Amino acid sequence: RSMATSARQSLTIGLIPADGIGREVIPAAREAILAVQSELPRVKFIDLLAGWETFTRTGNALPRETVQILKEECDCALFGSVSSPSRKVAGYSSPIVALRKELDLYANIRPVCSVSADSSTPPAVDLIVVRENTECLYVKQENLIQTENGKEARATRLITERASGRIGKIAFSLAKARPRKLLHIIHKSNVLSVTDGLFRESVRAVPTSVGIDGKFDDVTIEEQLVDSAVYRLFREPQIFDVMVAPNLYGDIISDAAAALVGSLGVIPSINAGDSFVMGEPVHGSAPDIAGKGIANPVASIRSAALMLRHLGYASPADKIDKAVNDTLAPAKVLTADLGGQSSTTEVTDHIMALIHH
Amino acid sequence: RSMATSARQSLTIGLIPADGIGREVIPAAREAILAVQSELPRVKFIDLLAGWETFTRTGNALPRETVQILKEECDCALFGSVSSPSRKVAGYSSPIVALRKELDLYANIRPVCSVSADSSTPPAVDLIVVRENTECLYVKQENLIQTENGKEARATRLITERASGRIGKIAFSLAKARPRKLLHIIHKSNVLSVTDGLFRESVRAVPTSVGIDGKFDDVTIEEQLVDSAVYRLFREPQIFDVMVAPNLYGDIISDAAAALVGSLGVIPSINAGDSFVMGEPVHGSAPDIAGKGIANPVASIRSAALMLRHLGYASPADKIDKAVNDTLAPAKVLTADLGGQSSTTEVTDHIMALIHH
Ligand SMILES: CC(C)[C@H](C(=O)O)[C@@H](O)C(=O)O
Ligand SMILES: CC(C)[C@H](C(=O)O)[C@@H](O)C(=O)O
Repeated sequence: RSMATSARQSLTIGLIPADGIGREVIPAAREAILAVQSELPRVKFIDLLAGWETFTRTGNALPRETVQILKEECDCALFGSVSSPSRKVAGYSSPIVALRKELDLYANIRPVCSVSADSSTPPAVDLIVVRENTECLYVKQENLIQTENGKEARATRLITERASGRIGKIAFSLAKARPRKLLHIIHKSNVLSVTDGLFRESVRAVPTSVGIDGKFDDVTIEEQLVDSAVYRLFREPQIFDVMVAPNLYGDIISDAAAALVGSLGVIPSINAGDSFVMGEPVHGSAPDIAGKGIANPVASIRSAALMLRHLGYASPADKIDKAVNDTLAPAKVLTADLGGQSSTTEVTDHIMALIHH
Repeated sequence: RSMATSARQSLTIGLIPADGIGREVIPAAREAILAVQSELPRVKFIDLLAGWETFTRTGNALPRETVQILKEECDCALFGSVSSPSRKVAGYSSPIVALRKELDLYANIRPVCSVSADSSTPPAVDLIVVRENTECLYVKQENLIQTENGKEARATRLITERASGRIGKIAFSLAKARPRKLLHIIHKSNVLSVTDGLFRESVRAVPTSVGIDGKFDDVTIEEQLVDSAVYRLFREPQIFDVMVAPNLYGDIISDAAAALVGSLGVIPSINAGDSFVMGEPVHGSAPDIAGKGIANPVASIRSAALMLRHLGYASPADKIDKAVNDTLAPAKVLTADLGGQSSTTEVTDHIMALIHH
């Protein structure tokens, strides 16, 4: 499958709401795509199963059929959010981590941008977290042994030159396209000199790699230890533009950045590979508010826009993003996480009305 | 060596300023201890070497002599901060990580508390991060291999029942002594079900372990995934009381918490084992401001107090802490990191005057 838009006669989108509020917000993302369908090839949705509830019913958190249909029939997908059991359950393993690996969605791209009340003020926070999505501790190679001093568990943290280089390339491309052209490499090489050393050097090697020599010369490279990065994110978020990080640091940093703009409920992401892309709100399944109809649909709607943009459909993506911003800026129709009183449906309807306007 | 105060005729304190602003703030901590010496056994200081500068001069970041004197002659120590090279340097390895391991200082205790302007308002942030200090990715077992697809690096993350249990015990004890008696276990067991699963279960097993049965029944246990923990720290820090975490999460979380109270420059810590304790400001060596005489001495002075308290000297520790709070609350004599214009010496002198008052 090619990512080029011109080749596409139709756009088949897998929908995997999974658990909790995923089931309430993925329908909103679906609506947003339908609202801009006149600018897209023929849109088709396929509902797919995954998640904790699927596991409790079928014994499998990621049915083989779901993966097969994604690979064979879908151009892209939207994933909701997944609940995890509070204790280890035999046979259960996170379907989102598995999907990222199965589909080789190696780049997790998470833009975090605050919305200013009036459009003449630049946003206080405007950054993109580019998270490596396939390795680090997420390779899940763990073992447990019984010793005379008790149990000992070990996990492997894998960092490869190849995966670090390809995520580095994505990060450089994103930085180059932004006004500030600034890239922070996030690592902890003062402790992990070999693994994080390799990550850092592989990213740094991108601008001089064969074939793209000189292309990224205008991007400024900075580095920040992960602990300081979190500290500085809180204290002076404006210093960051694009941040590239190994998997686990990226997970933590994107949540930290989300806290700065008011709510995890507005932060979108895509999991992108060379031939597939999957939108995913950064928030979790939020069991405490699930089923109440009050979840914020913005993160999912923005994830749909980000996915369309990645597929080459910039104009419909812009339409969706503008409608979202024009809803957030006046701060009148907001869900509870943003201090409002509107329901998921009310916010969604408001955004759809603005798109259709 | 016993930690019991009564046994001690003298108190020998190793001073390891190490690099950068460590050299400017450790002398302030020394002054604070001297200011309360009438309530302590005979105090003796021994100056010791370690750090990046020591490495560049001697080829060894942690001279054998430093470790030997700490083990054989000192009751406790104060460590400043260490610079790390921006690239991997053969033979160099962080002396603070090595010291924690050499002296088996398994508990890194980092209280983060905001100072209210008037004493009738409770502090907005009042929590303690209890960080496991000897294992996780800090075991530094890393290797690098060359494959046909490029370099591959692996690090081992070690979590043991023994180390998790003993840090859990410290965390429960600290929680029990606080009004809210609330303990959050921080982990990422939705991905690391084996290693973080073992951490969580070992901490949870503390209240029922043989010998302390029932002792911690009044402590409420909660859990929080590390990414959500960072998010919630920013959004609603008041929900946290004591947080216990594996090494790397603890490193990140304590920096995140520090950002909430204005500056890393005020956050103290101790590295504590069963027979030794080492105070250490949480901030780094800050090469950008080193040598200018403007570093905040508060983190180091508070680390000295925390160390004395841990050794059983509550009254002199209280005196130091009160003088620090009485300096911070009126916000008149502050270093630049807190928005003030005073020098390291001016802040130190002000605190000393309040102690002597
Ligand atoms: C649900 C969990 C496995 C996941 C992760 O850690 O990647 C989530 O936190 C995320 O950020 O998408
Ligand atoms: C300097 C570094 C090795 C250290 C750590 O990661 O433990 C520091 O960040 C700290 O928190 O004391």
